[in-house]
Amino acid sequence: MRSIPPSIHRLVRELNKLPGIGSKTSERFVFHLLRKGKEDIEALAHSLLAITEAIQICTECYTFSEEPRCGICTNNDRNKKIVCVVAEPKDVMAFEKTGAYNGVYHVLGGVIDHSHGIGPQDLRIQELIQRVEISGITEVILGTNPDMEGETTALFITQELKKQSNIQITKIARGLPIGGNIEFADEVTLTNALAGRIQIKNE
Amino acid sequence: MRSIPPSIHRLVRELNKLPGIGSKTSERFVFHLLRKGKEDIEALAHSLLAITEAIQICTECYTFSEEPRCGICTNNDRNKKIVCVVAEPKDVMAFEKTGAYNGVYHVLGGVIDHSHGIGPQDLRIQELIQRVEISGITEVILGTNPDMEGETTALFITQELKKQSNIQITKIARGLPIGGNIEFADEVTLTNALAGRIQIKNE
Repeated sequence: MRSIPPSIHRLVRELNKLPGIGSKTSERFVFHLLRKGKEDIEALAHSLLAITEAIQICTECYTFSEEPRCGICTNNDRNKKIVCVVAEPKDVMAFEKTGAYNGVYHVLGGVIDHSHGIGPQDLRIQELIQRVEISGITEVILGTNPDMEGETTALFITQELKKQSNIQITKIARGLPIGGNIEFADEVTLTNALAGRIQIKNE
Repeated sequence: MRSIPPSIHRLVRELNKLPGIGSKTSERFVFHLLRKGKEDIEALAHSLLAITEAIQICTECYTFSEEPRCGICTNNDRNKKIVCVVAEPKDVMAFEKTGAYNGVYHVLGGVIDHSHGIGPQDLRIQELIQRVEISGITEVILGTNPDMEGETTALFITQELKKQSNIQITKIARGLPIGGNIEFADEVTLTNALAGRIQIKNE
């Protein structure tokens, strides 16, 4: 369609690459931006360029950081004896948003996924084992997703860690999500919720 | 959350301003982009900057263009005697995608909307009337949305045009959308579909 300016076409195509964004939504974004004006578009463009310049990988936990060591690893108020193992930096963000965790993290960079040719050697599992050996960690929390790849990865890490140390290994609880409904819960979730039942303390 | 890099926060906030994009989706975009890498992010940023530099308003029809006059107005194959009046440049894009229209456009820059203080003087209606007077236009197609503001605007333009010329004024058809369902059509749509019924020609 040569009747539409090429620069608009190009931007539609770029936004179209975002996950879950079809060409209609992408067009809507472009016309929204053009209506908002130059300043808003530049603010977005500069924020994008800023992350390509600022973001690196923390040398200790491998999450995204603007410094060689991230804000979590350099924070003296965090408990360095507890490490939560996650697949991706986005999982760090999810845990951080709860405000309920005061330990540190270890980002694997993925999960074991044989169907996509990703084995343990492609993840930062050796780095985790070395970290556990040298840094006085007392508890490893396995914070991978409750799906096949996440469980496989958690199991593999458990076996590796048990070979060399006696640290405590825990896994985040599986059960009914808050606001969930027993009637509509799938069998596996309900089985996990039963198996993971906790004692109600006398008040 | 000082544990999350500020540049990531800023980008999440910027993407969050896009229509229909909540903070969860915005975060997903950012982590997707970070996984894709520097080149993809830069391509998007540069496409954004390109539209702020390249896009201007066509001096003839007021749609977005990279030249003083847009690719439609400068195309000698288009019929300059028929002009389709639309609210926004995005409507031009929608008509162009059909490939079914060979006339030119006139972008009003909005619709009459008294609840938001937008009157006829805020739109390019005088410009339309002048265009009709001087440029030999024989038909004006009213291509505004079939809602209250769109209909009000179409009615106003009809009255203004009738004051000064005898050109043909048409309105795009209202009726059942293709794939639609009579059972679930609202009464106004069905009334319009009945009123706009067309003769079936003998083959």
